Parts: sequence; C-alpha cells; structure tokens
Amino acid sequence: MRKQVELHKSRFLTELVEFLSIPSISSLSEHKPDVQRGAKWLADSLELAGMENVEIIKTEGHPIVYGDWLHADDKPTVLIYGHYDVQPADPLELWETPPFEPTIKDDKIYARGATDDKGQLFIHVKAMQLLMEEHGKLPVNVKFCIEGEEEVASPNLAPFIKENQEKLSADAVLISDTSFIEKGQPAICTSLRGALALELNVETANTDLHSGSYGGGVPNSIHTLVELLGSFHNNQGQVSVEGFYEGVPEPTEQLRNEVAEIPFDEESTKKQLGLDVLYGENGFTFQERVGIRPTLEINGVGGGFQGEGLKTIVPSQAQAKISCRLVGDQDPSEVFKRIEQHIQKQKPVGSKVTLNQLIQAKPVSLDSTNEMIQKAASSFEKVYGVRPLFPKEGGSIPIVEVFSRVLDAPVVLMGFGLPSENLHAPNEHLHIENFTKGIETVCDYLLDL
Amino acid sequence: MRKQVELHKSRFLTELVEFLSIPSISSLSEHKPDVQRGAKWLADSLELAGMENVEIIKTEGHPIVYGDWLHADDKPTVLIYGHYDVQPADPLELWETPPFEPTIKDDKIYARGATDDKGQLFIHVKAMQLLMEEHGKLPVNVKFCIEGEEEVASPNLAPFIKENQEKLSADAVLISDTSFIEKGQPAICTSLRGALALELNVETANTDLHSGSYGGGVPNSIHTLVELLGSFHNNQGQVSVEGFYEGVPEPTEQLRNEVAEIPFDEESTKKQLGLDVLYGENGFTFQERVGIRPTLEINGVGGGFQGEGLKTIVPSQAQAKISCRLVGDQDPSEVFKRIEQHIQKQKPVGSKVTLNQLIQAKPVSLDSTNEMIQKAASSFEKVYGVRPLFPKEGGSIPIVEVFSRVLDAPVVLMGFGLPSENLHAPNEHLHIENFTKGIETVCDYLLDL
Repeated sequence: MRKQVELHKSRFLTELVEFLSIPSISSLSEHKPDVQRGAKWLADSLELAGMENVEIIKTEGHPIVYGDWLHADDKPTVLIYGHYDVQPADPLELWETPPFEPTIKDDKIYARGATDDKGQLFIHVKAMQLLMEEHGKLPVNVKFCIEGEEEVASPNLAPFIKENQEKLSADAVLISDTSFIEKGQPAICTSLRGALALELNVETANTDLHSGSYGGGVPNSIHTLVELLGSFHNNQGQVSVEGFYEGVPEPTEQLRNEVAEIPFDEESTKKQLGLDVLYGENGFTFQERVGIRPTLEINGVGGGFQGEGLKTIVPSQAQAKISCRLVGDQDPSEVFKRIEQHIQKQKPVGSKVTLNQLIQAKPVSLDSTNEMIQKAASSFEKVYGVRPLFPKEGGSIPIVEVFSRVLDAPVVLMGFGLPSENLHAPNEHLHIENFTKGIETVCDYLLDL
Repeated sequence: MRKQVELHKSRFLTELVEFLSIPSISSLSEHKPDVQRGAKWLADSLELAGMENVEIIKTEGHPIVYGDWLHADDKPTVLIYGHYDVQPADPLELWETPPFEPTIKDDKIYARGATDDKGQLFIHVKAMQLLMEEHGKLPVNVKFCIEGEEEVASPNLAPFIKENQEKLSADAVLISDTSFIEKGQPAICTSLRGALALELNVETANTDLHSGSYGGGVPNSIHTLVELLGSFHNNQGQVSVEGFYEGVPEPTEQLRNEVAEIPFDEESTKKQLGLDVLYGENGFTFQERVGIRPTLEINGVGGGFQGEGLKTIVPSQAQAKISCRLVGDQDPSEVFKRIEQHIQKQKPVGSKVTLNQLIQAKPVSLDSTNEMIQKAASSFEKVYGVRPLFPKEGGSIPIVEVFSRVLDAPVVLMGFGLPSENLHAPNEHLHIENFTKGIETVCDYLLDL
C-alpha cells in the first residue's frame, strides 16, 4: 500500500492539521464545546472513510464516537479504540509553535495531541479509507469506539462498554496509543501500569495573614503541605506510605531479563533530558522503575503568593496534585485508603487536610504469545523491516483493562509514537514517517487477519 | 481640633478615596505607571496642604515625594515618613468589594492600602492642612519624605537618606505605619523585626515529562522543593537551619514581662482567624513568637500543573517564596549564607537549586523613655483617653533602622491602624474613627512640641 499512502499523504496531513487544531482538552470545562467539535469532526471523518452507523453518543461527560463496517461475513471483527481528547497545553510559554496551530517542520507535525492520540487514531481512519477506495470493501469487520475522556481516565467509557458488550464484541481490540522503543524499533506493549490520581488540599486560617504580625505564631498551610508531601518518600527513593507496596509482585529473574532486553541508553537519555543523574527506587534499573515498579509522583503544587516580587504573608491555602502508577495486584482503592491513613498520621496540628480522588485504573498484563498480537508483530516487521519488542509500558490506558476483561478479547497495543515526542509536554509532535508507515502497517494487519 | 476635623471629614474622605483608588502596587512592574500616578497625586496633595519645595524625586525604582515647611524658626523639626505604595491585591476573589474601588461601610473604608499605609500617611497631610488653615502656619518645622517602595523593602530610600542627611535632618522622625493593640488601646511600637526575603528555584529536566513513561525514574522538581522546604523546621516549631538563631538574644525576665503585659486574648484570636490552635516555636507564648522571636515562613509555592483536573507529568520546575523575620543582632546577610549552606547540604541529587535574595532589613529597637516618644504618648492619651502601650512589633519597616542610625534621631511610631484591619490580605480597611482621631492626635502632638 506504500504507493497509495504516498499518493494521498498531503491530503491526509491537511485533514490531520484540521483535527489537531481543535483544542479538545477534556479536563478543562471551558473547552467542552471544543471537545464536542472534536467528536463531530471525527464522526464526519469516519463517514468519509466509509464507516456506517456512525453515532455521536452522549454520556454524562464528553461523547463517545461509534462507527462500524460489518460486511466481511465470517471474517474476524476488530474493534478499534482511540481518543480524540487531549491534555492541557500549559506551560504555553514553552511551546515553540502554538499548540493548536499544527506546524509541520523537519518531517514532524507539532501540536497538542499529535502523538497522543489524534495522530495515531487518525492512522486507522485513513487506513480504512484507503482499503475501501482500493478494494471497495474491508478485509475484516471493523468497529470504531473512540472516546473523548481518556485524559481524564475514561469515567463514562467503562460503563458504556459494560452496557454494550454485544454491540462492541470483537475478536481483537486494536489500539494505537503507545510508543516505539526508539526510532526504527517498533514495540507492542504487553503491560500497562494502573493509576490513581489525587488532589490534596490544606487550609489553615480563614484568610492569608501578614507574616510580620502573625508569622511564627500561627499554622502555615504551605508548611503543612510540604511536610506531608515530603513524607511520601524516604531517602532510598521508596514510597514510605505504609502498605503502598502490597500486591506488588517481587520481580522474577525472567521478568528482569525481559525488561533488560529493551534497549536503553542511559547517557543519551540523560543528555536528552538535560539531567546529570537519573533517580528512583534503590535496587532497580531505570527500565524497571518506569515499567514494572509502582510510583508516587507529585504533579503540581500551589499556594500563597506566586507572583513577581514578594508578598509577606502566612498563606491560608495550599494544594497539590499527586498521581500513582500501580502494578501487579495493587488495588487503586486500597492505595487511596493507605495514603489517606498516612496523611492522618502525619498531619501537623492546626490544618484542615482533604484528599480527593480524581481517577483510578487497575494495572493490566497482556499475553504476547496470542495470535492476534503475533500477527501484528509480523505486519510491523513487514513494513519496518524490524520485528517489534514486547515492553512493559510505564503509562496507563485505564480502559485497556476494561476492554480485556469485559469483552474477553486480546488487546493489541500497536503504537506508532516515539518516546521522544513530548506527549503531555510542550512541543508534542508526531513523526510523519510513522503516520504514513502506520497506515501501511494497519492495512497489512487487517488484510492478513 | 475635633470640631475642625469633623467639619472637613467628608471632604477629607473623598480625597482619601481618590488616593486609594490608584493601584500603586510597587512589586508588580505592570503597575509602574500607577505608582507614578500615586506620587503625583500625593505631591499635589502636599502642595494643597501648604507644603513648600514639593518635589517628585526620581530613583532607580519608584519616586520619593518630598515637601517641607521650615518657617518655625527655632522650633523642633519633625520629619514625617510614610509610603504611598501598596501590596498586591490577590487573591482577588476573596475581596468583598474591589480593592481599588474604595468602599465605605460600617464606618470603615475598604481598599488595598487603607491602613497600610495610604490612610495613615494621609492623616499627616490633612493634619498639616488643618493647622495651616487654623493658624496660618505650623507650630514646628516639618519635612515630608514619602516613598513608593516600602512594600519592596525600600531599595532606593536608604541611599537617598545617606546622601541627603542635611536635607532630611530632624529632631524626630514621625511614622504612622503600625497598629493599636486593639480598638481603643493605642500603642507606640518600640521594636521592629528585621527581614530577609528569598526566592528558591528548583529545576530538574529540561521539560515536563510524562509521569507514565518517566515517573519513578527521573528527579521530580517538586519532590526536591518539598524536601528542602520541609527541612527548614523541626517538629518543635524551631527553624532547623544551622546557625539561624545566632545573634538572637535570650529573652530576659523583664522583656518577657513587658511582652506579657500587652493584652492578648487567645480564644478570640483563634475564633477570628478560624483556627483550632495557634502554633509556633516551643517554649514561647504567641506574643513572644510574633514579637521577639525570629521566624522563617514560606509565603508561596508553585510548580507543575495547578489547573482544574489533572495532568500526569513529572514537573521540571518548582519555586517558593520565603521570608524570615529577624531580631536582636541577627544579620540578614549572615542568615542568607546559613540558608544557602543548609540548602547545599540538604539538596537531593539531580536538581539545580538557586536561591535569590529579594530584600533584607536589620532589626531595630527604640527607647520608649525618649521625650519625643513620651510626648506622643501624651497626645494619644488626650485624644483617646487611654495611655498607649509600648509593644514589640512583629513586622518590619526596614527604613526605621536607617532613619534612626543615619539621622541619629528618635523615631516615633505613632500608628493608627488596628491589627484586625487585614493588612496584606483581602478586605484591607481602616476605621474612619482612627483616621479623624489620628488627625487630632497629630495636631496635638505638633502643637505640644
């Protein structure tokens, strides 16, 4: 299909630019209309690709976009999942080109959502269109189920899947929302960490107070916050919340070997990130720390005066965002309880502390020997000339565990991103080569099934 | 003078409203034109009050406003100091009326700067005007030296004083920028804490990273920040920076008794602030903690994602604002060095940490038996019917130490604020009763000298 892809490449890119310029940020309520616009744009695009029964399905949050083509008789059915929502774009000042004015530069397309996940999702839409144009039909039955809430942990998709098992039933779930190991080395991820995201709020007095008149004599919300946040780790890089590691499997020799097989260049990683050292839990390698070990990271913190210059106050309010990555049999609800208990135990006097859960997702493990996954590996090999590796991914795609369990189907994580593509960060981008080769790979895979 | 004050009260208040509506925030560069407008307004007001040689003196920062009336021959000379700049107004959402739309309610005037220090400064301007209108002259020689940088620690006034010793020479320096003990109980403050304000910046990677792909494997700027900030205090409420307490005098029995004499109602303070407990350095009372003990307070903290919802990043940048109050012979430069050493010692691997000094001021102590201070006490007593107390103030007016040392004159801290007037906080206000009685008190004092 390489020729056909090349023929239509510039048209496809023009369409992708249009898709990427919609700021469909699911976590910010002021962008709700943009998320809706994103759903509408995607639905139109599915119809253009020849999908039938295209629906924009309302939920309590952002809509799900569905479409199918079911005329391949006894051929297998593939359910394609992806998400059209994106992360917030701040800090805006660090973007070299505006996040929602997609810019093509050095064979990459720069925009929020370029790799996570609009660009990768669009690979499938365009693959269907090419197959239809080429053969007048698809080689397998296809269902698209695309959500607009992945970046807020899919609160409405899980119930939707449970209520629509028949409608969504499939022989494989195909998802492109993960990364290569590095440029030229494809990967099919076979393990995803679970997640638990929290918001911690501290309140002391009912107003900010003058640090001259009250400083030293009243509780300070930021002192409480940093004391609590500082208590989450010990100096071995371990999480010091009692019970946090319950359910975390002791890594077997085999697992450690598998992880070690994934190529990783510490020096070039440090150089790329501008770091003198990498840092994490004692006794584990970088790949283990980010792949098979659980973590607790503070994602944001704020309180008191943050402007230019100074304001000598005792701040009355402070807050932090925290997220955990979970593995093995760690249960997000249980981890939440443990953190709550930890805070109650550590909490200094004079502060009101509240902990809210923002999202949770269970860890998931997939069987790399499954036929559906092995065939995907073959298609990768055909297009890229290199057989994919099967890494343990550090990130979380909460819905993978639900698809796998509720639909009882193998999930094929056929990612076309690169780890260097700044997902969730300023200057997110997608290599156009992987966009076009991605379309080839998907076409080959479906033709092969 | 009560009658004359009452006669002109409404005109004076209209003028004060005009003065308070100028957002002369010295710490925010976008308000530079407003600060200049404030200086011009004040200069016009001094001329209206009959002052001569009125000048707006340029500095490297915001201008100093000078004016004098020197025709009282061999009578003493009083230098009046105040500041026309104000604190930032945020958090704006907590103001019940807009900070720069002064509002009169329940005999109070609400606005940023109402009590700190425009309202108190304006007492002197209007006192001069009344004395001039009444007697055609002033009973003493008067010099006004008003700055626009008090809230950023007077970086240009100190050199100005040193270069203009002759021009500013006086028998007393009169300042209204402090508070009563409580409504009806005036106070002449005889001790001010010094100050040291700092900005702490932490940087790790050159960009925010995805907490799924990198979480647990790279340094997190907020982890470093909270570890450092959390290390500044021990669980006794003491500052744990080595050498911090050098130069802090062991409080004598007499000093502790003096401090204990200042009325203080713990229960009503807690109730007013919405606090279950007060908190501070072990072994000291609330009044000691905020009056004669040094402190280190975190005034603000920020880093990573602070918006609505979540963003699962490993943040690469985080910062904090810190300020110390100093007493006795503590030297701000020495304390800065100690904090720097502490940070170098505590700093975790993989972080670039920088510490910048924003302001510094030495502590100051005044002799309450001085005649100029005792006469001020008598004027307070005449107008309010209560003799003032002589408390140790927890705040810092950095320039007091400079006036006292360079001009070798007693400084009279004749404050008309109330501790409940929310200075540096939302809903700052001034009791109009203290504005009018303040004018009376100042007139009486000058007539008495």
